[in-house]
Amino acid sequence: MDTKTKGEITRTKVIETARWLVNKKGFSNTSINDIIETTGVKKGNLYFHFSSKEELGQAILRDAADDFFQFLSDSFQGEKPLEKLSSFFDAVLEKHRKTNFIGGCIFGNTALEMSDRNPKFSSLIRNVFDTWVDKIVSLLTEAQQTEELGSEISPRLLAKQIVASIEGGIMMARLSKNEDDLKDCLDSLRALLGM
Amino acid sequence: MDTKTKGEITRTKVIETARWLVNKKGFSNTSINDIIETTGVKKGNLYFHFSSKEELGQAILRDAADDFFQFLSDSFQGEKPLEKLSSFFDAVLEKHRKTNFIGGCIFGNTALEMSDRNPKFSSLIRNVFDTWVDKIVSLLTEAQQTEELGSEISPRLLAKQIVASIEGGIMMARLSKNEDDLKDCLDSLRALLGM
Repeated sequence: MDTKTKGEITRTKVIETARWLVNKKGFSNTSINDIIETTGVKKGNLYFHFSSKEELGQAILRDAADDFFQFLSDSFQGEKPLEKLSSFFDAVLEKHRKTNFIGGCIFGNTALEMSDRNPKFSSLIRNVFDTWVDKIVSLLTEAQQTEELGSEISPRLLAKQIVASIEGGIMMARLSKNEDDLKDCLDSLRALLGM
Repeated sequence: MDTKTKGEITRTKVIETARWLVNKKGFSNTSINDIIETTGVKKGNLYFHFSSKEELGQAILRDAADDFFQFLSDSFQGEKPLEKLSSFFDAVLEKHRKTNFIGGCIFGNTALEMSDRNPKFSSLIRNVFDTWVDKIVSLLTEAQQTEELGSEISPRLLAKQIVASIEGGIMMARLSKNEDDLKDCLDSLRALLGM
């Protein structure tokens, strides 16, 4: 049974549509009118749910973060930690392949677009990267303890570099519309880590 | 002796100022009026040199590419190929430290902002990344031949991953305003490559 109220349904619809537009066009290039036109929600109703475009932007980032953390947990498949990391790499490639690398990563995009201008957005996105890095640090630490990972490099340095490679790889593949740019980055990481 | 004509001086001034604005604010958020106000160049004069904002955008990317290729060559200091790569890593960190990580990389920023919308910009930026990857491929190939680099991983895969790590690391350091996010990525690469 769906117990959502009419207001909650509208709120969810606005967030989902606006998130899709922001991912494709960027935050500054998405106007309130774009969102009104695409959702069919009236302006007064939209401002009942979100006092400003900035508040809607924050709701979009929170919604995208919830989805991403779920995606991370779901994609950690396998018994051993490096198997889990490898299945996460596969899932990332598959996720972006499905959209033909249009849109890319909403956190990376918004970080580059807004991080010198909007501290609230920056703080939300920093939290996503910090949590993501922490989860990979756990896998790498366990992999070193069980000697699945031979390298003695600091798990935190390596985890940051993995996240940076994925973000850079998504950007390059989005630019070239060629999935190999991301796939090559992931394969290079696999080779370096002996995965 | 400076042999630049008055027109060339104006053209250079517009490109340099607009490039600084675009790097900080993004292409869409930089208006022709911003450029006129900051340079003091009259609108008619600006449109004499650049028929459109898009043409100015292309000139900015070409100018930034010239500077970046010069920066790449200058930063490859040392005898051995991995020494050259390591001195390039130092130079990248120093370059962004100087600006307190404001602005970041104009190619990465513009790629994320424009790559789904402007094929001319995409093609100019792709050329920068391709050239950058090629130069690192040369270093890594030489390093494998001389056994300075032990890993037998494909130089092209590894070069793409190095470029992606740097771009992702610049984005993360720009977001956190903490140089460690880029430094840690570079140190992780050094450790993995035995540099």
